[in-house]
Amino acid sequence: MATADKNAYQLMTTAELDATISELERKVDDIAAQGLKLDMARGKPSPEQVALSRPMLDMVTSETVLVDEGMPVDNYGVPDGLPSARRLAAQILGVDPANVVVNGSSSLNLMHDAITNAYVRGIAGCKPWSQQGTVKFLCPSPGYDRHFAVSASFGIENVPVPMRADGPDMDEVVRLVESDPQVKGIWCVPKYANPTGVVYSDEVVRRFATLKPAAPDFRIFWDNAYAVHGFTGEDEPLLNIFDAIGEAGGGNLVYEFGSTAKVTFPSSGIAFITASPIDMVDLRSAFAIERVSPEKFSQLAHALFLKDLDGVKAQMARHAAIVRPRFELVERKLTEGLAELGIASWTHPKGGYFVSFDGPEGSAKKTVGLMKELGVIMTGAGATWPYGVDPHDTNIRIAPTYPSLDELGAALDVFVVVVQLVAARLERASRA
Amino acid sequence: MATADKNAYQLMTTAELDATISELERKVDDIAAQGLKLDMARGKPSPEQVALSRPMLDMVTSETVLVDEGMPVDNYGVPDGLPSARRLAAQILGVDPANVVVNGSSSLNLMHDAITNAYVRGIAGCKPWSQQGTVKFLCPSPGYDRHFAVSASFGIENVPVPMRADGPDMDEVVRLVESDPQVKGIWCVPKYANPTGVVYSDEVVRRFATLKPAAPDFRIFWDNAYAVHGFTGEDEPLLNIFDAIGEAGGGNLVYEFGSTAKVTFPSSGIAFITASPIDMVDLRSAFAIERVSPEKFSQLAHALFLKDLDGVKAQMARHAAIVRPRFELVERKLTEGLAELGIASWTHPKGGYFVSFDGPEGSAKKTVGLMKELGVIMTGAGATWPYGVDPHDTNIRIAPTYPSLDELGAALDVFVVVVQLVAARLERASRA
Repeated sequence: MATADKNAYQLMTTAELDATISELERKVDDIAAQGLKLDMARGKPSPEQVALSRPMLDMVTSETVLVDEGMPVDNYGVPDGLPSARRLAAQILGVDPANVVVNGSSSLNLMHDAITNAYVRGIAGCKPWSQQGTVKFLCPSPGYDRHFAVSASFGIENVPVPMRADGPDMDEVVRLVESDPQVKGIWCVPKYANPTGVVYSDEVVRRFATLKPAAPDFRIFWDNAYAVHGFTGEDEPLLNIFDAIGEAGGGNLVYEFGSTAKVTFPSSGIAFITASPIDMVDLRSAFAIERVSPEKFSQLAHALFLKDLDGVKAQMARHAAIVRPRFELVERKLTEGLAELGIASWTHPKGGYFVSFDGPEGSAKKTVGLMKELGVIMTGAGATWPYGVDPHDTNIRIAPTYPSLDELGAALDVFVVVVQLVAARLERASRA
Repeated sequence: MATADKNAYQLMTTAELDATISELERKVDDIAAQGLKLDMARGKPSPEQVALSRPMLDMVTSETVLVDEGMPVDNYGVPDGLPSARRLAAQILGVDPANVVVNGSSSLNLMHDAITNAYVRGIAGCKPWSQQGTVKFLCPSPGYDRHFAVSASFGIENVPVPMRADGPDMDEVVRLVESDPQVKGIWCVPKYANPTGVVYSDEVVRRFATLKPAAPDFRIFWDNAYAVHGFTGEDEPLLNIFDAIGEAGGGNLVYEFGSTAKVTFPSSGIAFITASPIDMVDLRSAFAIERVSPEKFSQLAHALFLKDLDGVKAQMARHAAIVRPRFELVERKLTEGLAELGIASWTHPKGGYFVSFDGPEGSAKKTVGLMKELGVIMTGAGATWPYGVDPHDTNIRIAPTYPSLDELGAALDVFVVVVQLVAARLERASRA
């Protein structure tokens, strides 16, 4: 049993600690003998979840009318995407369809496109980022590794800022964005953040909406990937950032992204972007250079299958029924195995795809490494921080959706033992 | 009737010429009164052509096994594209599937990605293009406006080089590529070139394959968009540039692109890229940053519908039956209306989507402008040259596929009258 400032291992005598380590090592040996092969690395929907969208594959057939509100589906044109798909996307994000472009299947690709445009051609009347020396992106951490990889690939300096229970540390964000003209962007997953599950508070959203950036070409990259991805049935509304900007007097401040990658099919959903009307002029001209026009059959199938926000919500309720027991299992296993020891903390998300786990300082790499030796692949330790450098080596992203409940339970049982052993060994090493 | 060095209007007395102009102006007035609304602007398949691919829409249904040679279709992963789609793409291009990535629906987007990678991150161990001062792309002209727009959007200097009947002027290409390290690329459509319809000769392909570029990070952008798009039934083989490079001792020289945009559905085909194994390592790492994984349902549908190169050829024969009469009509109308006057020349392609037309010097903008006034939209004059600047203002791209035969005939009747009037007026103005 832990106390307020010491964990259970710190309270043990060295003899007790050695005995505990020996017992945990025996358990690990037993696990190793099982030859497990489990994967909790990525935020992937399970086979049961993707099966929910199979009826979408019957929506467009050789008999379907291939015209969408007067627009051709089966030929070039319609660069902004089909009207019905744009309306659907707009409903998911709560914005005006006139400002939405639906293009391709990857919102990450749209983020990459938006950065390419600013980097190569420049935005807001400013020089291209490529000609402005070292530019910076703020990276609320822990955060999404693929976001950080995109900005890093442009030579952009990724600057970590702390994540709080209500969103990024806004004092730090405001200070950096308003003082440093080299800060050109910030990566945000405002609802069910990857990996913490945090929903940004209204105050945090309002502070974003009222930012006065030092750089006119600063933009918030608002990746609303999990806009409709709650799984408890409880509504956790996110304040609409465009509404908040409107209340604050308007401005060109946000690129918002979304997709149906975790509504219908991963990699084969529809991806969309919205921004202020002025920013959309700019983005449309970039897209016009990059592509003749978007793939439209998938857009039509999505519009016919999901129909509108009510259809999306019904689909997400079906996902929730599959996802929720997995997150409940994580909560139960971690609580049973670790709560009393005081060696770890973790988040309790009501939506999204991840649980963010923190063990003792210096434990994350060891934990993930030993898990791998035992046949359980987890997201690499450090992946949730820019350049893969977690300053305290504590954070591990748990992705519970893909495995079956049985597999997940088995993986968590291993995880609990491994976390205990790593923590006990760290304590023992500190006494050596 | 023209002579070898004078056209019919040049041979007229001024009185004859004035009478001819008056008669042509009456014809134009009659046309204007018809209120035509015809579009010959872009290389778009006709509705009959896109209907050929409707059966593809029944290939993937809710009952389909969503695994392709062991790879999941309905979840993340498979970053290079489905095995069956890669094999199909490899057969179309005549290359090893191991070096093919199928990703998205737009080959133009893959070209943009390849340039972005070289511009932002650098290739072949060289500094990024963005840090090498003004870099240049060679643009065989007349050529494809969207190619030129992509390179121009990066601030790359587009340098026109002449197009010949057997491909680009290779003396000029060799001289520029081998002497100037700022030359980083050349845009090529090697088969049924846009807009001339030229198929590059074996000698031209061999001279490309044996280039010794001054810049190690020079690449040929080999857009084999019309690899299987002959419409006369006569085979006009293109020497495989990778074979030619292999014979010449190998090297990392070519990015080749293709798509099924004009095999199945425009904007909703599958797009692919191939290059040397070393270049593919580089391109794969770029794609890995830009997207989680490609859309795969469209890939599966294509593989099931087209199956293999024989399936593609059968589909293209069906396209040819629709396309060929349109090109024959262009040839007949232009010959009947213009051949004896000696005021114009045009190409006689056996594949692809365009006829390249040259009127008298200074005629193209006037011709396209007057066509527009009469209700017939053509590709903008100059579009086939970098920055839209045709040095002699002669070239017009004719795109005959989209209109019906009746519409096309009507548009060509107008075109013939307009070309005559513009040429006659130019001759009259030269005498003023």
